Amino acid sequence: MKHSMVELIRTKRDGGALSADELAWIIRKYTDDVIPDYQLSALLMAIVFNGMTVEELSAWTRAMLHSGEVLDLVAVDKPKIDKHSTGGVGDKISIPLAPVIAACGIAVPMMSGRGLGHTGGTLDKLESIPGFNVIIPPSQFESQLNSIGVVMVGQTETLVPADRRIYALRDATGTVVSVPLISSSIMSKKLAEDLDGLLLDVKVGSGAFMKTVAEAEELANTMVSLGKADGTPVTAILTNMNQPLGCAVGNANEMVESVEVLRGEGPADIRELTIRFAAEMLVLAGATDVEAARAQAEESLASGAALDVMVRLVEAQGGDASYIEDPTKFEIARRTHVIEADRDGWIETCDAYAIGTAAVRLGAGRAKKEDTVDPSVGFMIDAKIGDHVVKGQPLATVSYRDGSTLDAALTLATPAWSIVDDETHAPELVIGAIT
Amino acid sequence: MKHSMVELIRTKRDGGALSADELAWIIRKYTDDVIPDYQLSALLMAIVFNGMTVEELSAWTRAMLHSGEVLDLVAVDKPKIDKHSTGGVGDKISIPLAPVIAACGIAVPMMSGRGLGHTGGTLDKLESIPGFNVIIPPSQFESQLNSIGVVMVGQTETLVPADRRIYALRDATGTVVSVPLISSSIMSKKLAEDLDGLLLDVKVGSGAFMKTVAEAEELANTMVSLGKADGTPVTAILTNMNQPLGCAVGNANEMVESVEVLRGEGPADIRELTIRFAAEMLVLAGATDVEAARAQAEESLASGAALDVMVRLVEAQGGDASYIEDPTKFEIARRTHVIEADRDGWIETCDAYAIGTAAVRLGAGRAKKEDTVDPSVGFMIDAKIGDHVVKGQPLATVSYRDGSTLDAALTLATPAWSIVDDETHAPELVIGAIT
Repeated sequence: MKHSMVELIRTKRDGGALSADELAWIIRKYTDDVIPDYQLSALLMAIVFNGMTVEELSAWTRAMLHSGEVLDLVAVDKPKIDKHSTGGVGDKISIPLAPVIAACGIAVPMMSGRGLGHTGGTLDKLESIPGFNVIIPPSQFESQLNSIGVVMVGQTETLVPADRRIYALRDATGTVVSVPLISSSIMSKKLAEDLDGLLLDVKVGSGAFMKTVAEAEELANTMVSLGKADGTPVTAILTNMNQPLGCAVGNANEMVESVEVLRGEGPADIRELTIRFAAEMLVLAGATDVEAARAQAEESLASGAALDVMVRLVEAQGGDASYIEDPTKFEIARRTHVIEADRDGWIETCDAYAIGTAAVRLGAGRAKKEDTVDPSVGFMIDAKIGDHVVKGQPLATVSYRDGSTLDAALTLATPAWSIVDDETHAPELVIGAIT
Repeated sequence: MKHSMVELIRTKRDGGALSADELAWIIRKYTDDVIPDYQLSALLMAIVFNGMTVEELSAWTRAMLHSGEVLDLVAVDKPKIDKHSTGGVGDKISIPLAPVIAACGIAVPMMSGRGLGHTGGTLDKLESIPGFNVIIPPSQFESQLNSIGVVMVGQTETLVPADRRIYALRDATGTVVSVPLISSSIMSKKLAEDLDGLLLDVKVGSGAFMKTVAEAEELANTMVSLGKADGTPVTAILTNMNQPLGCAVGNANEMVESVEVLRGEGPADIRELTIRFAAEMLVLAGATDVEAARAQAEESLASGAALDVMVRLVEAQGGDASYIEDPTKFEIARRTHVIEADRDGWIETCDAYAIGTAAVRLGAGRAKKEDTVDPSVGFMIDAKIGDHVVKGQPLATVSYRDGSTLDAALTLATPAWSIVDDETHAPELVIGAIT
């Protein structure tokens, strides 16, 4: 061994910094099964407590990035811009956003994840479309980016294998919550996509992993600087995740809502974030006039160009595109229950975490990694923060498969709403931006 | 699973306390190979950072203690008192002390360890006697305690198996340095010996694991309170370990020095600590008059009773007792090198850590667990703190096997001595006592 792992653990434990060479050695030897899990987990816990310096984090991320293949998209003759969300409830923005951007001439090589904890995952939502493949052959990746301008796939096995292993270990050892470990995990995967720019949606609030603006700002700043160190422009937008985005929380129902947005309809918050993010991504691709970029994104929705991209994307990845043309084809569970307001007043909370965990209980997400997702179940929310309701008015409609999951979900979801006498107001969607 | 290990890790990471039931579950499931090493090492690192409450530590120690067999010495009709040292350089006190105490009518069921890092181990020293067995059959344990009053053996496999596994994991994961983990490791093993009292020699200084009095006091207080919680009286004596104890640092040469003490000779510091510790152990066994206890210990040396116990002990455990009767029989390496004073003056330091690591390089200790120990090599120290020397006068004589180990050892050992103009004084041996 070139280095002693136990010495390196001690250094980190005692507040010292590891060199780029030492960090690269750790990632390499762990991936090669030379360093055992029990040593890496001890190091990860020491990192949770003592953090990493900017230099350490940059070297660690670079080592993760180079633990496997790195995409080479030189044959794609457009700016390549991706967007990543840190995860929320009802967050289906990627689904309308990617076609909008592709319709504006940007290539979006989007690699997404599955639902994690109380948050939903883009891949699970897309799989509500019968036949849709989230894995495509490498040869199709480039050709589809050139022809349609967008791929929406899962992380491939060959990209950043170190992250897959380290993430599984962190999940089992209580070492997920750490700004350097979260940011290196996200950024190593995104930087492996050979991007010209990256938009990060850093969620803040009860339904996000970052509960406070300060935590979210720290994470956003860290990821933006990792992008800079790699020469990739990154913009981070902090957005509110105290209540779900849009009305649909589930999988098939979120697809329906996404298609509505592509038709120029759908909830105002989803429409607004889609346009805002599209404009930011056009700026990352070189646009200098933000207002013109917004107008371009709006036009791609209004003209039907984005919807057309979505149809072609679904067809290219083996899905039944008739679902996009007629979203009533999506299967929604037939059994429904309405949660009603128990008094007159103004909605003060519509807690994203409570509704997210309740949706998991219905079967829309996974309690364990091995669980399968039921695309047909979920919530349609009728009343959000700032709305006025009268007693008996619906707050949400639950679509469910069986009564026992409904009971458990209602226990979790019903306290999500609080109703007060004084007028309330919808929160600001966007909290801030960091570039 | 009754509990979720990852939840328990998170609780400890976030500064919470685990219940007695949760801690017992962790030890049991780890010993049963249900909890993997990588989860325990993450928990251990969280304990290094966040510590344990008194209640947690007591429950953890109890769970370790009951992870295997516990000795039942009800058939031994004498008070059973043991002594444990946290480890030092030239620390051979156990070897003369146990026979002294046994000659006073106390049973000493002493389970010792091997050299660790720069510190020596009682078992390695005893094995300088040809034929000496540090493993004896369980049936012999009780009968020897009844007939001779002392056994000097290694930890058996069946006692506190959890500690053996956890210690190996700590050693590999940088989680050794932690007062709760050190104290639970020591005390679980000692409390498994069915003792009526325990004397702890907590070493402080460069040659000890605890470098400051404050650290040593914290460790001593913790171990004394763990004894109290178990109903076992414990006395902790803090002793100086800035310079080696006695003159011999090695294995065979430390046996020679131990026999000298048993003959009423030997260096004053070893003699004094032996008598002091013997008196403390007699008090733990019920003596109320400390001066009378000292006198009793001195008499067991003066009368030759303690030396006689040593001879019988060595015979009982298969060793060649003629080595005790004629210590010149111990093999000392023939090649010697004298370290000389490079100026006139007073000895200000005679650094135990430097000399201890140099002795390991000569072969007196182990760099890796698998290494074998060479009993014949080591240091005989001529000048210690408070001595006056003239240029060219010997500071120490090194006995070595081959020139390359000598060179490495000299590089480490020579800076151990510093000589100054102003008069220096020998440090106090005993820093304090905690009961």
